[in-house]
Amino acid sequence: MSAEIIIETLNYVGIIAFAISGALKAGEKGMDLLGFLTLGFSTALAGGIMRDVLLGRVPPVNVVYLPYPLTALTASLLAFFLYPYVKRFKDYVLYPDAVGLGAFAAIGADITANYCPAHGVHNCWLTVIMLSALTAAGGGVVRDVLAGEIPVVLRREIYASAAALGGLVYLVASPLGREAAMMATIAAVTTIRIAALTRGWELPRVKRETP
Amino acid sequence: MSAEIIIETLNYVGIIAFAISGALKAGEKGMDLLGFLTLGFSTALAGGIMRDVLLGRVPPVNVVYLPYPLTALTASLLAFFLYPYVKRFKDYVLYPDAVGLGAFAAIGADITANYCPAHGVHNCWLTVIMLSALTAAGGGVVRDVLAGEIPVVLRREIYASAAALGGLVYLVASPLGREAAMMATIAAVTTIRIAALTRGWELPRVKRETP
Amino acid sequence: MSAEIIIETLNYVGIIAFAISGALKAGEKGMDLLGFLTLGFSTALAGGIMRDVLLGRVPPVNVVYLPYPLTALTASLLAFFLYPYVKRFKDYVLYPDAVGLGAFAAIGADITANYCPAHGVHNCWLTVIMLSALTAAGGGVVRDVLAGEIPVVLRREIYASAAALGGLVYLVASPLGREAAMMATIAAVTTIRIAALTRGWELPRVKRETP
Repeated sequence: MSAEIIIETLNYVGIIAFAISGALKAGEKGMDLLGFLTLGFSTALAGGIMRDVLLGRVPPVNVVYLPYPLTALTASLLAFFLYPYVKRFKDYVLYPDAVGLGAFAAIGADITANYCPAHGVHNCWLTVIMLSALTAAGGGVVRDVLAGEIPVVLRREIYASAAALGGLVYLVASPLGREAAMMATIAAVTTIRIAALTRGWELPRVKRETP
Repeated sequence: MSAEIIIETLNYVGIIAFAISGALKAGEKGMDLLGFLTLGFSTALAGGIMRDVLLGRVPPVNVVYLPYPLTALTASLLAFFLYPYVKRFKDYVLYPDAVGLGAFAAIGADITANYCPAHGVHNCWLTVIMLSALTAAGGGVVRDVLAGEIPVVLRREIYASAAALGGLVYLVASPLGREAAMMATIAAVTTIRIAALTRGWELPRVKRETP
Repeated sequence: MSAEIIIETLNYVGIIAFAISGALKAGEKGMDLLGFLTLGFSTALAGGIMRDVLLGRVPPVNVVYLPYPLTALTASLLAFFLYPYVKRFKDYVLYPDAVGLGAFAAIGADITANYCPAHGVHNCWLTVIMLSALTAAGGGVVRDVLAGEIPVVLRREIYASAAALGGLVYLVASPLGREAAMMATIAAVTTIRIAALTRGWELPRVKRETP
């Protein structure tokens, strides 16, 4: 199986897992069917949409390449009708979600790193890191904002930071070729995310002010 | 009166009704004059702006075609100075709002359906449906997020879903010509929305979790 | 020292002050290091990013011109590690913040006013005013939304309105040349903002409804 097929498969794993995470949040808030579809779609695809808008790649692939929105919307629809079961097994979704985080970070890094030289942008490393994190974690931020919550990735989880580190891994590994760099990114991000989940790693933070 | 004039007139009805809905939310939250202008503008025009950004139609017509922002800002300003009266009659705004929902959905469908073949996008039906809903309901989502609330369209109202159905009506009716398809869309969306309002229709939803 | 150098220097003052304001909000909410970086970056640069996306200037300068994101991220990082000190002196940040508000409004006005004729947009005055306010105050709106709060600029401060007035000053002063118009804008916005701060000026608002 070629690297390309593996990466695209993991991308779909991510779309489905992210959509379920959006649907679970919609259920937690008592939303209706449209809320499930919107949060599922946004969690899975809004990060990539924001990346594409910032790079001028419009219309964004996540809007017009039908398999992506159809996968996200179908997963959200199924999560709506099977909500009691999905909710009961929600901790298991964290593992495909970690795989999807890696795939999204790798795809975001790859798109950005190849966009820059083609558009005369020099010194692209910070943009690669930022857009890896945006591709992978932007959807979760939109999900939480639409749910009326402070985005969890800003508060305590090693999530967007794992994706940002993935952008760095891509840059370091890019002399090995695009596909190898993407595979290395996926492996690094997924490993860090699962380690953070199982060991309770968190980023440092300041003590919350008493109001 | 030509269909074009009718559609543009209903578009202005929508801009005014949506701006008032934004201004009412600003008043409910005790915002100042700038809050009224921002929420009025956003409710009326942010959906179309997001559609245009996603399609690469920049600068968005809602930003640079002066009659649109001037209408939205003037309606918001009047709603500020006449706030006690506007608040008292706010239930009547729901009817022009329903008309505007139909006009916005029809315009969003028409723009997207004509954009796709001109830009080599095949299989555009889902994009038409999604961007109809975004054009018509996106402004209300921005309004609620800026007001610190979970968007009402995600929770219980037949609103964005009526607009999405309007995108489908446009596609089915499009062999009749653009203007006929738009008129059919407006009629369908407005009828569904008013029926939902008067009969209390809602989309299905899951039972809210106890926190 | 040329006007260009003064304006660019004040722009950096703004980036640093805005990033610190974002970091302070992150600290107030008990966010982690990534939250500090995200809110610092967004407060300083999201307004200009939204302006550039609306004008089709992609990728936005705030994303790909490294000195801007590096300055914002470095200021946010320092504010994280020196948080107790930054918090203690936070009232002093309001003065460089007012200078930055002026610089951002002037830059937003200048970019928009020069964009319009080059892209065949007539009657650009309202767009100049709106995009001055968006450039200067859009980042603060994103900061507050990410922090789960109703944006303060919509509720009580003379902030976005000072920036909008700056757009008007730019237009009136533009016969004097671009640099003179920008300097006049910075002077006007900064003066109004500091006067509003020290004298407690506020925009009119309606009485908050009892819930």
